[in-house]
Amino acid sequence: MCGPNFVDDHTRSRIAAWASVRHQVGASPFGPEDQVGMLNLVTPQISASMLARADATRVFDLSVDLFPGMPTWTEGGEPPYQIWMNHTPQGSVVDDPVGVGPEVNQLVAWSADSISMFTHCGTHVDTLNHFGYHDSIWNGFTTKEHLGSTGWTVAGPDTHPPVIARGVLLDVATAHDVDLLPDSFVIDQDQLEMTASRQGSEIRPGDVVMIRTGRGSTWPDPIAYLPREPGLNRAGAQWLAERGAAMIGADNIALEHLPSADAENWLPVHTYLLAEAGVPIIEVVDLEAIAEEELFEFCYLGAALKLRGATAGPVRPLAFPLLG
Amino acid sequence: MCGPNFVDDHTRSRIAAWASVRHQVGASPFGPEDQVGMLNLVTPQISASMLARADATRVFDLSVDLFPGMPTWTEGGEPPYQIWMNHTPQGSVVDDPVGVGPEVNQLVAWSADSISMFTHCGTHVDTLNHFGYHDSIWNGFTTKEHLGSTGWTVAGPDTHPPVIARGVLLDVATAHDVDLLPDSFVIDQDQLEMTASRQGSEIRPGDVVMIRTGRGSTWPDPIAYLPREPGLNRAGAQWLAERGAAMIGADNIALEHLPSADAENWLPVHTYLLAEAGVPIIEVVDLEAIAEEELFEFCYLGAALKLRGATAGPVRPLAFPLLG
Amino acid sequence: MCGPNFVDDHTRSRIAAWASVRHQVGASPFGPEDQVGMLNLVTPQISASMLARADATRVFDLSVDLFPGMPTWTEGGEPPYQIWMNHTPQGSVVDDPVGVGPEVNQLVAWSADSISMFTHCGTHVDTLNHFGYHDSIWNGFTTKEHLGSTGWTVAGPDTHPPVIARGVLLDVATAHDVDLLPDSFVIDQDQLEMTASRQGSEIRPGDVVMIRTGRGSTWPDPIAYLPREPGLNRAGAQWLAERGAAMIGADNIALEHLPSADAENWLPVHTYLLAEAGVPIIEVVDLEAIAEEELFEFCYLGAALKLRGATAGPVRPLAFPLLG
Amino acid sequence: MCGPNFVDDHTRSRIAAWASVRHQVGASPFGPEDQVGMLNLVTPQISASMLARADATRVFDLSVDLFPGMPTWTEGGEPPYQIWMNHTPQGSVVDDPVGVGPEVNQLVAWSADSISMFTHCGTHVDTLNHFGYHDSIWNGFTTKEHLGSTGWTVAGPDTHPPVIARGVLLDVATAHDVDLLPDSFVIDQDQLEMTASRQGSEIRPGDVVMIRTGRGSTWPDPIAYLPREPGLNRAGAQWLAERGAAMIGADNIALEHLPSADAENWLPVHTYLLAEAGVPIIEVVDLEAIAEEELFEFCYLGAALKLRGATAGPVRPLAFPLLG
Repeated sequence: MCGPNFVDDHTRSRIAAWASVRHQVGASPFGPEDQVGMLNLVTPQISASMLARADATRVFDLSVDLFPGMPTWTEGGEPPYQIWMNHTPQGSVVDDPVGVGPEVNQLVAWSADSISMFTHCGTHVDTLNHFGYHDSIWNGFTTKEHLGSTGWTVAGPDTHPPVIARGVLLDVATAHDVDLLPDSFVIDQDQLEMTASRQGSEIRPGDVVMIRTGRGSTWPDPIAYLPREPGLNRAGAQWLAERGAAMIGADNIALEHLPSADAENWLPVHTYLLAEAGVPIIEVVDLEAIAEEELFEFCYLGAALKLRGATAGPVRPLAFPLLG
Repeated sequence: MCGPNFVDDHTRSRIAAWASVRHQVGASPFGPEDQVGMLNLVTPQISASMLARADATRVFDLSVDLFPGMPTWTEGGEPPYQIWMNHTPQGSVVDDPVGVGPEVNQLVAWSADSISMFTHCGTHVDTLNHFGYHDSIWNGFTTKEHLGSTGWTVAGPDTHPPVIARGVLLDVATAHDVDLLPDSFVIDQDQLEMTASRQGSEIRPGDVVMIRTGRGSTWPDPIAYLPREPGLNRAGAQWLAERGAAMIGADNIALEHLPSADAENWLPVHTYLLAEAGVPIIEVVDLEAIAEEELFEFCYLGAALKLRGATAGPVRPLAFPLLG
Repeated sequence: MCGPNFVDDHTRSRIAAWASVRHQVGASPFGPEDQVGMLNLVTPQISASMLARADATRVFDLSVDLFPGMPTWTEGGEPPYQIWMNHTPQGSVVDDPVGVGPEVNQLVAWSADSISMFTHCGTHVDTLNHFGYHDSIWNGFTTKEHLGSTGWTVAGPDTHPPVIARGVLLDVATAHDVDLLPDSFVIDQDQLEMTASRQGSEIRPGDVVMIRTGRGSTWPDPIAYLPREPGLNRAGAQWLAERGAAMIGADNIALEHLPSADAENWLPVHTYLLAEAGVPIIEVVDLEAIAEEELFEFCYLGAALKLRGATAGPVRPLAFPLLG
Repeated sequence: MCGPNFVDDHTRSRIAAWASVRHQVGASPFGPEDQVGMLNLVTPQISASMLARADATRVFDLSVDLFPGMPTWTEGGEPPYQIWMNHTPQGSVVDDPVGVGPEVNQLVAWSADSISMFTHCGTHVDTLNHFGYHDSIWNGFTTKEHLGSTGWTVAGPDTHPPVIARGVLLDVATAHDVDLLPDSFVIDQDQLEMTASRQGSEIRPGDVVMIRTGRGSTWPDPIAYLPREPGLNRAGAQWLAERGAAMIGADNIALEHLPSADAENWLPVHTYLLAEAGVPIIEVVDLEAIAEEELFEFCYLGAALKLRGATAGPVRPLAFPLLG
């Protein structure tokens, strides 16, 4: 569990400093143009080091399928996932969309479709523009200057690089010898330390950390998957951010325990990680297979769809066991 | 340019046999349940061999951004890419979507959005259900048995594995010493052989082959990018399929030259590759950077979004230079 | 309650004849091109006669608002009503969609929005293509000849004339001295006769008949409005069709009682009225105010949005008290 | 052409006063809660008077069909009209959306569909929240207080009553003896006076005034219908508002001549009518048939779909010739 560490002490102390700010958007240590925050901690050297050890004969897919009726956040009126046909083989014989006549349409059996979805549906990365404080987001970008009618002009998944990093699974459920943590179970610093200790895991700067609550085992039952989820609290998130987590994910819809214990903030882990600490989030991650394999350390590889200016990017992340 | 070859002679002869069928859907050599065709040629050994040599310090992103107004196929009435806000920081103060009151909404600056898109918009994989012949697709799946009201139940991107393969760039434009091939330029077997020969490239079973026409240099101007594109013809596609291409992509909207020269088939390369030869397609690939680097051989890594039953999957593929 | 009758005996006997066919699409007595069925019974004379007596000082609006979260049919994966902004006053200052610069955008405070909806959401007319039998609809139009990839080419609301007719309210709930009929309550011929008799109402050829179940009093609570609704059965629908109803509506989501009592047909009143009898349906009608006024007879005026080829047309129908 | 006048002199003078304000939102003379402006001028007496004379044997439909590819405003990235199927007779046999099995699905041939559209697509009413000045709209409603994340909470078509009014057609094209006014032709006060004079028409308080430019004769060719339209200028709009127009419509996409002659305002007639004068607008009105009939005065009846908070409401307005 030892290995290279490409982040120096100065950076470590800066990480600790950012992590302690409260309810105020962070100024990026990576400069006034920075839009991706702690993804900067994933250096090319880390990426190269991890990919060099990746075993491509056993790829683990960390994403879920997208389909109508899948569990997704709809409490605030967000649209459920939809798919529909624009062209069907028989339909084209009737409507002849490209003007080739019935015989050609009968020969050339064309099917094509469209989708609509909340960008936070399915396995996805929350980008730093998703939550802020008082009309500002990470690094001081403001709604006044940077929020157009249909979206942000900064900090969307189009600014995310492909991420190849050390991945760490913290299987909190298994550390408690359960398949599924209780509703609204709080994962704080102690829980994380206990889990890391039992697993023999260590968090290093630039890591993509995955928290397993067991909710993934209930997928895709919306009733079991969505309400009152177990998850991180702010202290737990801060513990991870202080150790240099580049991105934090979980096998649930919102990473953090719900409902919030903070009467003044209904998603305090989101605002902390995204707006203060500059740490993107990954949600609806399928961790069941790597938990089964006890793949606590792995090569994480994920490249979110570059939806310009969006607050999330759908992604199909992969986990590779490490060789050598 | 030599290297391991994990596909035996028997497989090679079967590849050649399938490739010669005409206007009739192919029966998969991989069995009656097969839904991904020649992706089966990408063996774990090939994936491991390529990833082991991948240089992660220089990752090339082969995908384009998704944004309103981007070039996309709309000739048959397909919807353009759209994005919109479900929640804005100020808007939530007014509509209070989660019932927390104005002060909390003011503190917690929530932004969230949704998209709608034709699945063939942006960089995407065409799956084998996209085109067939006479109400059947690859491997004999039929509209009657497998096409529901809003989509296919088979052969969508949810059936695609993450693809880690040898990638080959055939830069036909540069082989002709031009930045951009002329409108409707036909890339046939001779063009491919000439390009491969000039580059010193070889196509092997399991390869992901990228054809560069130069149209990518006009991105994102819809007028320059979309109409009358240069591209493959059926003979060129067949030449690639016979050599065992697992997937074929290009830097244009439809892979093949348009308009079609075949009066009875308006997209003959699509029907051939998808329905007869079982070869998925990748479109709107950004090949400019790897062409600039003359990265003719690389490690291809792409994992399409698992839109269940869709005829295409958006994807952000990566190209890694090869070490050693 | 007496009045002019512009439909002759011959027509009456034909109406009775069509109404007795079972599980077989009807051939229109109005000719092979007919796409609107019994709307033909609303003659210009009926329209003129009714409008001449309409009291425009007291217009009753029979439609509901459309808004996110409203009750709508989603059991089969249909999308809920959505609305979103394309342009906001502040957003245009940021994204400058028409290229006029920040000062002009600040002056000209532009707001604009889009919607998406199931066509059967809100107050709407079900057109005759909504249900059929075995791939055919009213008057023998077939899926093979008339159903394109995204819709029917016949019998949509674009074929509906504005309807100005005699309206009759049959307030079954009040006839039972209740505000709301019990769940799944069956409204059959006897119920209709009893209600008509208590009210002193008569059904005449060309009438738009509104059935009040009381479900409208629960609007817009989805839990109370949607499941296990009271409503018509086939015998009740047949009784109305035999009397020449041109259109039949109700204050619920699906007109008929649910669940269906017919194991072989999950919406037998729909298939009967639309496919056999040629009678369009109106759903989610707000009948509360006219019930309160005991406006059992009125001038009905409704003009559905002409969504070409759709299976329903949103409509804002009006009821006018009759003068004289 | 004479007739009742239900608006008193005091109201007339107030109308003239409002109409002279510039670039400042109007305070409604109908009180601080007013959201519909000059629709208040359509008194019940006017409605009754007009409907009493309406000839229902000859109804003129003033709306266009809605269909994919129809002309619509897309310059600012707005979505074109879309329709798609949620259920098809054959598709339900495959996907069995309500769980009834293949035999029942085969018998019950269910078709159902959804739409998405810009609310300003097709014949529609622009509501007073569509344009304002500096973050305020008619009657002082502000974005800060009244614009939620997905729409306004005030002044949408859900606040519009059904409108039954005196309709006046000002056929400017015919007054110039042309079928179609030239591109960008300016309709000012003089043009309106000349047209009214030639027709013998008079504008009265509470009128719905329709301006015919001839663009409707090019429908539905987007190239001919949309760009550089002839239409009203501010002076013309003011002339109508001063006379008490309750609503002003035209047979084009944007009522006013385009491009705007005002360098500081790209839609000066919209901002004037909606924000200053409180006069809703109707666009994409089909005036061809009533122009052919020289139906210069008629009973106007229109009831916009009650899309809560939207900036426009689709509508199918009717024109009735006047009897007596």
